[in-house]
Amino acid sequence: MHRDVSHSLLVDLYELTMAVAYRGQGTAERPATFSLFVRTMPPHRGYLVAAGLDDALTWLEEFGYDDADLAALDRLGVFTDDELRWLGTLRFTGDVRAVPEGTLVFPDEPILEVDAPIAEAQLAETFLLNQVTVQTVLATKAARCRHAAAGRSVVDFALRRTHGIDAGMKLARVAAMVGLDATSNVAGSDRYGLRASGTMAHSYVEAHGDEERAFFDFATRFGERSVLLVDTYDSERGVTRAIDVCLELRERGTQVGAIRLDSGDLVSLARHARRRLDAAGLSDVGIFASGGLDEFEVDRLVRVEHAPIDGFGVGTALGVSADAPGLDSVYKLTAFDGRAVRKTSEGKATWPGAKQVWRSRDWSGDVLGRHEEDSPASGATALLVPVMRDGRRVVDTGLDAARVTFEREWAALPGVFKDLDRPPRYAVEPSVGLRDLTAAVDADQHGGS
Amino acid sequence: MHRDVSHSLLVDLYELTMAVAYRGQGTAERPATFSLFVRTMPPHRGYLVAAGLDDALTWLEEFGYDDADLAALDRLGVFTDDELRWLGTLRFTGDVRAVPEGTLVFPDEPILEVDAPIAEAQLAETFLLNQVTVQTVLATKAARCRHAAAGRSVVDFALRRTHGIDAGMKLARVAAMVGLDATSNVAGSDRYGLRASGTMAHSYVEAHGDEERAFFDFATRFGERSVLLVDTYDSERGVTRAIDVCLELRERGTQVGAIRLDSGDLVSLARHARRRLDAAGLSDVGIFASGGLDEFEVDRLVRVEHAPIDGFGVGTALGVSADAPGLDSVYKLTAFDGRAVRKTSEGKATWPGAKQVWRSRDWSGDVLGRHEEDSPASGATALLVPVMRDGRRVVDTGLDAARVTFEREWAALPGVFKDLDRPPRYAVEPSVGLRDLTAAVDADQHGGS
Repeated sequence: MHRDVSHSLLVDLYELTMAVAYRGQGTAERPATFSLFVRTMPPHRGYLVAAGLDDALTWLEEFGYDDADLAALDRLGVFTDDELRWLGTLRFTGDVRAVPEGTLVFPDEPILEVDAPIAEAQLAETFLLNQVTVQTVLATKAARCRHAAAGRSVVDFALRRTHGIDAGMKLARVAAMVGLDATSNVAGSDRYGLRASGTMAHSYVEAHGDEERAFFDFATRFGERSVLLVDTYDSERGVTRAIDVCLELRERGTQVGAIRLDSGDLVSLARHARRRLDAAGLSDVGIFASGGLDEFEVDRLVRVEHAPIDGFGVGTALGVSADAPGLDSVYKLTAFDGRAVRKTSEGKATWPGAKQVWRSRDWSGDVLGRHEEDSPASGATALLVPVMRDGRRVVDTGLDAARVTFEREWAALPGVFKDLDRPPRYAVEPSVGLRDLTAAVDADQHGGS
Repeated sequence: MHRDVSHSLLVDLYELTMAVAYRGQGTAERPATFSLFVRTMPPHRGYLVAAGLDDALTWLEEFGYDDADLAALDRLGVFTDDELRWLGTLRFTGDVRAVPEGTLVFPDEPILEVDAPIAEAQLAETFLLNQVTVQTVLATKAARCRHAAAGRSVVDFALRRTHGIDAGMKLARVAAMVGLDATSNVAGSDRYGLRASGTMAHSYVEAHGDEERAFFDFATRFGERSVLLVDTYDSERGVTRAIDVCLELRERGTQVGAIRLDSGDLVSLARHARRRLDAAGLSDVGIFASGGLDEFEVDRLVRVEHAPIDGFGVGTALGVSADAPGLDSVYKLTAFDGRAVRKTSEGKATWPGAKQVWRSRDWSGDVLGRHEEDSPASGATALLVPVMRDGRRVVDTGLDAARVTFEREWAALPGVFKDLDRPPRYAVEPSVGLRDLTAAVDADQHGGS
């Protein structure tokens, strides 16, 4: 289990060796700016939902090596006692500017920037990338599912399929941030104050052998919360039995919530079930669908087929972001000791210096500028705001605030970028000041190197 | 952060409602068998490397709701006080049969089977699926990378890109299990006793401005451990500077480990660098490659291009199992209260009853049989072995044992199944006894339902 993993040890070895090297050279305290951004848009995506800031700031606030950590670092066999003592003194004392969680971002735009002594800022690389990456991947996937459902309910059923526990917990949070309705994850529901939701498993029906008895017993106990799974043996027969049970319980004053379809042709099954439920006077019993669904299939069911489905449970595809599990996210040095820097590696060049992102009021495009530049247009919004000063967070990074941010952004985003398959590319242009700075840095690097 | 997540709360809500329903019906204590297996092989894969058992057994051993957990369950607003008190008494008291970690498995073959009172066995579903799924996905991906490297070194560079912390830790472990050489993850290295490895970042070179100075300072401090990253500005020039530094340090008695290429045409850059290093008398300085590598690209570099690369750092593609992040894994009831059961849902039917998997000595195919059946062929090996009895593990599930299992399996697996792109399908056939049982269950279910 990972419960006792020291989070400050969640670094790549080279963060430590570089920090120690800087110290040996007397430069560990010199100011650096690192920028965390995504280089390229993953397939099918027209936007990314920035997430992970809350955990990133918590890591920075709590960073520090205690005696047990130092013993672990000593076991690496790489560091001298003197270096270990110095590592033990390190805390994160810097500043962070970031876009609030829930903000929609595009490639090249910093999600966060760290201003700190270079050793401290370097050590944060691995954890910050890990959390911002996975949470942005999952938040974006969840937003796509919400969009596909077009107002119908979507429930996170993914805990059994996420890549581990941490991903399952973070998914519960970011799915709620982008407006999913509930989660099956009990720990996530409790941690983040979310509605927990669930149905029944095939095993429950099989353990009874008798499907009708299984439905009856469950619905008697859980009433409106009950979602009767009708496909264990044969969906058509399952619907018949569910209707019988719903009618019998209605006579006793108990309302059943819904039935659930989990296999087969969901369109025809849902239409057939809806007709039969309605004919039985059970218009208030909903139809819930699950079984290998992703945003593409939900979109087909809702927009193409107009299937009479009230809610969707989404598991694997959401939990692993199946069509785009990775993100080309990086954490790059952009300034050091008062000097803007950049790498010019083939195909991987970066923009130098601390940044600001300006978004026009009409979402006609963003400008990637220097941090100290003025707004390029009246009414443009600066996306990066101070979130941490001197190692302490200075903004509310709670889920409620992130939800408000996301809803505002989501309502403003032009619909064309929500296309699930081939959205256009949102324009992000460098400012004149940033281009000038880049030219100056290149001239300097070529002269000096 | 997730450090204080109670693992017993890592359940889907329906596990709890079903457990409570069983209790209400007086059946919670009745014996059940659940089988955890993969339904279909993910794309490109000829085998799966079973993993996750160690964490699964730890969860079962530690399962139980303390007062804080019960308060969380109470907040769900679903359970009565009496039900909560009962949930608080639950422990896992059952047995588990499983294939040892590191065993190669194929669709339909149980990775583990749980025999326990149905409420206990049901509650384990979410966590067991989560851990076996992610660890099997990652172990399989790592084994593919090892295969592609054909004896050259492979290092896990993925912590920054895994889906969260838990996945990063588990990847470090399973990558070591299948023979990867090292990990960049310091916490994982310490937890599992693995070799930690790392190079330097572009930021380190940029902070110096002067590439040669950056190399010189780092190599002076870290000697043989140094891997000089040559592509920050221009790889050809970077190689020239690395050679200068290697030669200068050699005069002082310090050996540099390797150079690292991270962008551009790795084949031509590696060939060029190798020639130049050799010409300078630096044949002992290795060449390490990274930058968006996956098993397909490593295979191309090694088998097609014969690029003179000594080691590979693999990040995103490994960390998220990019070409196949998910796994169609399920946890299905196969027996209840002495009666074999199965679901017959369209396209998702399962085999009934407790199982055994028999593997022939020549790997010509496996037989999926009933647990109580005899070996179908002389010399066949039974893969499922008792790993937990009465809630206590009865086997060593440590990493060393898993490594031994994997190496034995890997050496025996016919090479054709290691094909990275289109391996043949390994034969898994049901035994006559299993087919007979299935027919009997169907006759009974149709009669009784």
